[in-house]
Amino acid sequence: MTVSAFNHLWLSGLFGDLAMGEVFSPERQMAHMLAFEAAWSRACGAAGLFDPTRAETAACAIETAQVNYADIAAGMAQDGVPVPRLVKQLQAIAPADALHKGATSQDVVDTALAMTLREASDLIAARLADLETHLMALEARFGDRPLMGRTRMQAATQITVRDRILTWHCPLKGHLDRLEMLRPKTEKVQIGGASGDRKALGDKADTVVAEVAKSLGLAPTNKAWHTMRESVTEYASFLSLVSGTLGKVGQDISLMSQQGIEEISMSRGGGSSAMPHKQNPVAAELLVTLARFNATQVSAMHHAMVHELERSGAAWALEWMILPQMAMATARALTVAIDLSQNITRLGSD
Amino acid sequence: MTVSAFNHLWLSGLFGDLAMGEVFSPERQMAHMLAFEAAWSRACGAAGLFDPTRAETAACAIETAQVNYADIAAGMAQDGVPVPRLVKQLQAIAPADALHKGATSQDVVDTALAMTLREASDLIAARLADLETHLMALEARFGDRPLMGRTRMQAATQITVRDRILTWHCPLKGHLDRLEMLRPKTEKVQIGGASGDRKALGDKADTVVAEVAKSLGLAPTNKAWHTMRESVTEYASFLSLVSGTLGKVGQDISLMSQQGIEEISMSRGGGSSAMPHKQNPVAAELLVTLARFNATQVSAMHHAMVHELERSGAAWALEWMILPQMAMATARALTVAIDLSQNITRLGSD
Amino acid sequence: MTVSAFNHLWLSGLFGDLAMGEVFSPERQMAHMLAFEAAWSRACGAAGLFDPTRAETAACAIETAQVNYADIAAGMAQDGVPVPRLVKQLQAIAPADALHKGATSQDVVDTALAMTLREASDLIAARLADLETHLMALEARFGDRPLMGRTRMQAATQITVRDRILTWHCPLKGHLDRLEMLRPKTEKVQIGGASGDRKALGDKADTVVAEVAKSLGLAPTNKAWHTMRESVTEYASFLSLVSGTLGKVGQDISLMSQQGIEEISMSRGGGSSAMPHKQNPVAAELLVTLARFNATQVSAMHHAMVHELERSGAAWALEWMILPQMAMATARALTVAIDLSQNITRLGSD
Amino acid sequence: MTVSAFNHLWLSGLFGDLAMGEVFSPERQMAHMLAFEAAWSRACGAAGLFDPTRAETAACAIETAQVNYADIAAGMAQDGVPVPRLVKQLQAIAPADALHKGATSQDVVDTALAMTLREASDLIAARLADLETHLMALEARFGDRPLMGRTRMQAATQITVRDRILTWHCPLKGHLDRLEMLRPKTEKVQIGGASGDRKALGDKADTVVAEVAKSLGLAPTNKAWHTMRESVTEYASFLSLVSGTLGKVGQDISLMSQQGIEEISMSRGGGSSAMPHKQNPVAAELLVTLARFNATQVSAMHHAMVHELERSGAAWALEWMILPQMAMATARALTVAIDLSQNITRLGSD
Repeated sequence: MTVSAFNHLWLSGLFGDLAMGEVFSPERQMAHMLAFEAAWSRACGAAGLFDPTRAETAACAIETAQVNYADIAAGMAQDGVPVPRLVKQLQAIAPADALHKGATSQDVVDTALAMTLREASDLIAARLADLETHLMALEARFGDRPLMGRTRMQAATQITVRDRILTWHCPLKGHLDRLEMLRPKTEKVQIGGASGDRKALGDKADTVVAEVAKSLGLAPTNKAWHTMRESVTEYASFLSLVSGTLGKVGQDISLMSQQGIEEISMSRGGGSSAMPHKQNPVAAELLVTLARFNATQVSAMHHAMVHELERSGAAWALEWMILPQMAMATARALTVAIDLSQNITRLGSD
Repeated sequence: MTVSAFNHLWLSGLFGDLAMGEVFSPERQMAHMLAFEAAWSRACGAAGLFDPTRAETAACAIETAQVNYADIAAGMAQDGVPVPRLVKQLQAIAPADALHKGATSQDVVDTALAMTLREASDLIAARLADLETHLMALEARFGDRPLMGRTRMQAATQITVRDRILTWHCPLKGHLDRLEMLRPKTEKVQIGGASGDRKALGDKADTVVAEVAKSLGLAPTNKAWHTMRESVTEYASFLSLVSGTLGKVGQDISLMSQQGIEEISMSRGGGSSAMPHKQNPVAAELLVTLARFNATQVSAMHHAMVHELERSGAAWALEWMILPQMAMATARALTVAIDLSQNITRLGSD
Repeated sequence: MTVSAFNHLWLSGLFGDLAMGEVFSPERQMAHMLAFEAAWSRACGAAGLFDPTRAETAACAIETAQVNYADIAAGMAQDGVPVPRLVKQLQAIAPADALHKGATSQDVVDTALAMTLREASDLIAARLADLETHLMALEARFGDRPLMGRTRMQAATQITVRDRILTWHCPLKGHLDRLEMLRPKTEKVQIGGASGDRKALGDKADTVVAEVAKSLGLAPTNKAWHTMRESVTEYASFLSLVSGTLGKVGQDISLMSQQGIEEISMSRGGGSSAMPHKQNPVAAELLVTLARFNATQVSAMHHAMVHELERSGAAWALEWMILPQMAMATARALTVAIDLSQNITRLGSD
Repeated sequence: MTVSAFNHLWLSGLFGDLAMGEVFSPERQMAHMLAFEAAWSRACGAAGLFDPTRAETAACAIETAQVNYADIAAGMAQDGVPVPRLVKQLQAIAPADALHKGATSQDVVDTALAMTLREASDLIAARLADLETHLMALEARFGDRPLMGRTRMQAATQITVRDRILTWHCPLKGHLDRLEMLRPKTEKVQIGGASGDRKALGDKADTVVAEVAKSLGLAPTNKAWHTMRESVTEYASFLSLVSGTLGKVGQDISLMSQQGIEEISMSRGGGSSAMPHKQNPVAAELLVTLARFNATQVSAMHHAMVHELERSGAAWALEWMILPQMAMATARALTVAIDLSQNITRLGSD
């Protein structure tokens, strides 16, 4: 079992997110890796680098490959990447001369990441829109009610519920715009070969890149981006911006729930083993937790930009430890906020 | 399946650590939580707060309880802590009036954490000593050989292999000392009750604390530490200090392995899917990755010190997301360094 | 004197950046704050909220105000913001009824920040373009030369100097695009009044906002953004993305400068007090330092998104500690990289 | 002027700390560096490495040297360290053959750091004790009063003021103990010479180390620690642990100050430019800010442990950017907490 709160036997009840967990699941990542290898065989077949018939045979075999995960894990320990063993497994079921040649580990893993991020972005975009709708419904329902404005946690002047809710949902539109800008930068093939120069593809490089991109539904690229992590890091920043916005919502709701303040009512809260009367604002607190989690993790992604020369094993592996967790935290924060917004039965006073 | 590199279907081959994974496994954490509840029943029985016979009955039932984890996970989502549902499950198999009363969620979870950290410390101490032995063996074997000293990555003056290895193993003794100092601060019971004041225990508080501590082999405490996270955070700092030391070792070995430098030979390195001739210093790079991972995570633990009043759900939950991963990273760095030190077949020149 | 490396008596020789230091200088920040107050008086005069003649008198007095900084500093200690004392000082030289009324501290400080960021963006954009030119000149001069590709710091396959330089300058175009997108999001007025709802401006709010925006050359806003820090945090992320790109350049050059590798020659390097023969790649190392500095700081900016209700003193003040330093680090990294690119006399082998 | 909040023209009113600013002032750092150079000349004179008379002459000249800081700053830009230029300046006023020889930049800078940390520790220890006294006085005065215990910001069960104050002052004793343990680890000479092996000192190394240590009042060391940053990083962790404890105090007081909660009264609070009636808990919020500042910075110190080989310019320089600021933040947090504890006129209800 796992040390990760996202998949832990019971912590997952609080932190887990099934849909994003599925997007980042190893099985789904492997499916993307196999999709890359199949597309690669076909693209090289089309470009005349591989025998086209054997390439098609390879692609079909790859697409239905039964991966031996234990072997991949053992290879991971040895090679620091899953691809050498995966290729070996594929060579056992498909023509070795129409397989992987000209590509390298990073092409497989990073292109698979691009496919993962596409699915993650779909999920996040849908939830951002959903949350916006729910918060706007709250605004429509309670917006005109008076509320004490509180600055530095001190009563300031009277505002309306609308004034506060606007700070919750206005940033969501901006996040959707950010995501729209980021998608083409992240949904693109990684193709470089051994040292990232596509040399093994000779004058067929553009053809192969275009074919692989087309078959995976990703954008083609002029240059391998394996040591240029700006877009991936920007994506991580985006994830933390979203959870940061929701952290503010959670912080607000925690404060509004206090006895003596009571600016909000919710249809349910968390129970206590010692005090059955309590209604803990568990969901609101969780939003703060997830915001601070991502605000910390984003730092590692920025450190991971410092790659050495044509490939850094150290920096690249750091991303694998961080980025999936950030996506999980953001995804979970969105469902928590959506649920929370639907559980609010009162904002402000009548 | 999991998004965590430590437990991932194949990334675990590189990042996973079975022994530390066992220490932080949910099942083991649950065993500690049940041990607390059993000790609690007995201690309250001994103190006259519970009927002694019913307390013993409860303790025995608790010790052999079959936990319904799905129910705990569902409770986690609702309550933000696993304990209310756990208590409910225990009430179905043990006398409810001789069970948990006077304790609260944080007592159970944090005391279980103390037990987990005890096992983690055992593991880390053993590995630190082991690594020290291996590095000293390398020093004995290669220490007198000449080596070019390199400052700012530039050739400086000639030193010996010993000079460099000393910077790898000297800090290990200091880490063992740090751990020695930290153990009593972390291996202590957390007992506070509802608001952390032990009020429900009346004048039996000291007795109950002493009994629980004795039966769990932990130190007693004068005051609940649930909002005083200094020791837990210091433990996280310790974990990162250790992985930081090993990160320097890994950085050195990566640099020493370069063509044109060649100050080290190893019995095996990682393979490449594109370049079969390569021997990648995967283990050395992993040490750098794990150091930077923990150097980032430690920040969250320091943020988690900012608790609100008698208990912060937000800050506390952040620890659950971070601390187990830090322990895993440190534990894994230690085995990687131990393996690496055994795979070194040459340091310096003949 | 200062504890900051950017302004330290001698560390500033390495870390300091005069031009960005000027952009973030207190005197320049104060000039922006006074510009806001003058624009406010005039805008409220134009809107009929202040007597127009007295408003113009006030604006002129504000524009030529001699600020007593010691008094502002004393007020800062008391109020946590500089504005109450500043307003008091202005009231002594200008009509109090045509001054500041309807605005609040955050309007003054954040609008001044918007003006500061505008100047920072001008500087960064010019340097990004400059650096791109210099790196492209290097590519033109040395691009065709052979170079050993190095992955995981191990010799891989032969590439060209162009292949490596492309990873240095390609991201710069992306950064210029990012900045272009960010500028309108950050160069906008902050106007909210007491609790951020612009209530004190009544139906003149739009007019006042439009007038202030026009006179400061900033974009108008529909809503105060004082608790919505997404754009400011995104700006911080941008700063770290830029220094991260340059950190990779610095890391590469440090590695290329090693004896036994020698893929680069530079016209000058740093001296050593013990080894006069050494040519230390000080500038290249500095790029790594600045990248890791910003990669750390960016985390605090994400934490600072968690504002409480209508204004957080705690989160807001954290930005003041972090953002100016990040801008300095990025600005300095750019000049270091520009200088470095001009000092390169050889890349690859003849 | 400076971009640092600690020394800014007016932000320093809130963030500045005169006493710690003095400890970390460049002039004081330079005095320590000169003290090292004088001690070095004398020690090498005593050991027979330098002519004893010329060594004493040199030491006296060094002790009264008028440093040209602009020249040092220029050298910093070139060499990445201040020492080559400093030595050159000293050579102009003292016998060059009885000066610095056998030492290197890191010996001077890190030994000076050890002297700085000694003064920092004195200051922090005194303030920790002072704060403990003030908090205990509050406990004596208000401890018996009832207070609503609040867990997860929700009213739980009634406690006393004592229960809450204990969580504020109990950790202080632990911090004093930590500091006591850390002082000998940080107050020690750094002596290594060119590549850190003390080779230039031959068989006089132990004598020179002992003499320098004695004359500076620092502990001797068996080995240069310039690439073993464990103690310095542990010190940084300590600084953040202290500010973390105080961040919890600040968070509590901010929450207790809310209208509707009103568990505390203070003799003064911060004013607002828009709402003269407000009493903002500026000091309490500042404690939270400083805690989060240090919780972020501590990460960089852990990253800076990853040194390359015999000296990393990149990692070392990162410390210079971070550690002084952390000391300032902790020092300031302590005075803020001391002031705050003296301004409290009521805790709990009568």
